[in-house]
Amino acid sequence: MTIRILAGGTKINYPPNFEQVLEKTKNDFWIGVDYGALYLINHGAKIDVAVGDFDSISSSELEKIQKNVSRIIKVSPVKDYTDTEISLIEILKKDVTENIILYGATGGRIDHLMANLFFILKPEFKDLVGRIKIVDLKNEISFLKPGKNLIKHDADKKYISYITLGDVRRFSISKHKYNLEARDEVLPNAYVSNELNEHESQGIVSFESGIVCLIRSKD
Amino acid sequence: MTIRILAGGTKINYPPNFEQVLEKTKNDFWIGVDYGALYLINHGAKIDVAVGDFDSISSSELEKIQKNVSRIIKVSPVKDYTDTEISLIEILKKDVTENIILYGATGGRIDHLMANLFFILKPEFKDLVGRIKIVDLKNEISFLKPGKNLIKHDADKKYISYITLGDVRRFSISKHKYNLEARDEVLPNAYVSNELNEHESQGIVSFESGIVCLIRSKD
Repeated sequence: MTIRILAGGTKINYPPNFEQVLEKTKNDFWIGVDYGALYLINHGAKIDVAVGDFDSISSSELEKIQKNVSRIIKVSPVKDYTDTEISLIEILKKDVTENIILYGATGGRIDHLMANLFFILKPEFKDLVGRIKIVDLKNEISFLKPGKNLIKHDADKKYISYITLGDVRRFSISKHKYNLEARDEVLPNAYVSNELNEHESQGIVSFESGIVCLIRSKD
Repeated sequence: MTIRILAGGTKINYPPNFEQVLEKTKNDFWIGVDYGALYLINHGAKIDVAVGDFDSISSSELEKIQKNVSRIIKVSPVKDYTDTEISLIEILKKDVTENIILYGATGGRIDHLMANLFFILKPEFKDLVGRIKIVDLKNEISFLKPGKNLIKHDADKKYISYITLGDVRRFSISKHKYNLEARDEVLPNAYVSNELNEHESQGIVSFESGIVCLIRSKD
């Protein structure tokens, strides 16, 4: 089983054929965040938990959520975590090992996107490195652990980019179209529009410490 | 005069009434990057320089650009800088002090967006802190220098978010709805969805070193 979260980002950035995705994943555990909860209900999709402050939702919409979801986590608008982070904390509390896919985390407000990328650097979320993916219309984002990471081909998304998230030591790229000898990155840095080397079955990305964000994308 | 750059991001994320923006800024200096150059030409807008590898553009489109732009900087697809960074390097070469507004830098591919946010951390672009703004449909992004920054109201974009870009010392927020006592941030961190305190004419954000990204946004 996979845990899936629909955050409140703009619909236009949802993955292609998102309604088919919803239909095919009815056996998974689904969390809807704010408008994401309403979207799931309005599309007759699976929803297990709703999370949000729901302060920009009408009372009839809130009633609709209450009727359709057995568990609602109503959070205060004034809090130290974003609503999406609160969903992740709920998942971590359960001590589960499932993979997590986050939709609706991009598009529209860029501050929300930044929060959805940088939460991974907070110590309380470190167990999610390697387990969580952010998926939208053109991008698939994941996070790599230190060590030797093998990067496989994805026929649908040929571009491969690496974003060093702050302090990353001995970062190197090999068996790609553009390679990089080991170097220390102290600040965030974006190595974009790389591709795998077509003569290799997989690429290699290595580093000794820190977290690197992998973005696979298509035009 | 302002220097304006249209990068190749998705049209759907352009600022509201973008054609009016183009019409009103015919006295400014305009750079079109890749598809951005073609967009400016197709809309009969001002264009002074075109930058790009143009490898995903048809030969008739490239001819159109050549006919309409006196200066074309054709860059190799294999290079150390993104096309947008090459535009900025061109501007910096001229030793000008104008402000720069970057459009078409968001939406679609998130790796491109990341590159458009993190270039500011490279030493060669440090003179652009405080001078460059990234503007799209819902966001206005700028970068703050160390010291005491006064943050004014913007009636159109009530949400104010701060992203510490790596190593930022003694970062504090005051006279906002949610304040923060001085703390050191070693890794990127997103303080999102703040607002100015309505009883104050302006907010204050202070830090001793590093660069902080300010995102003003609306829903």
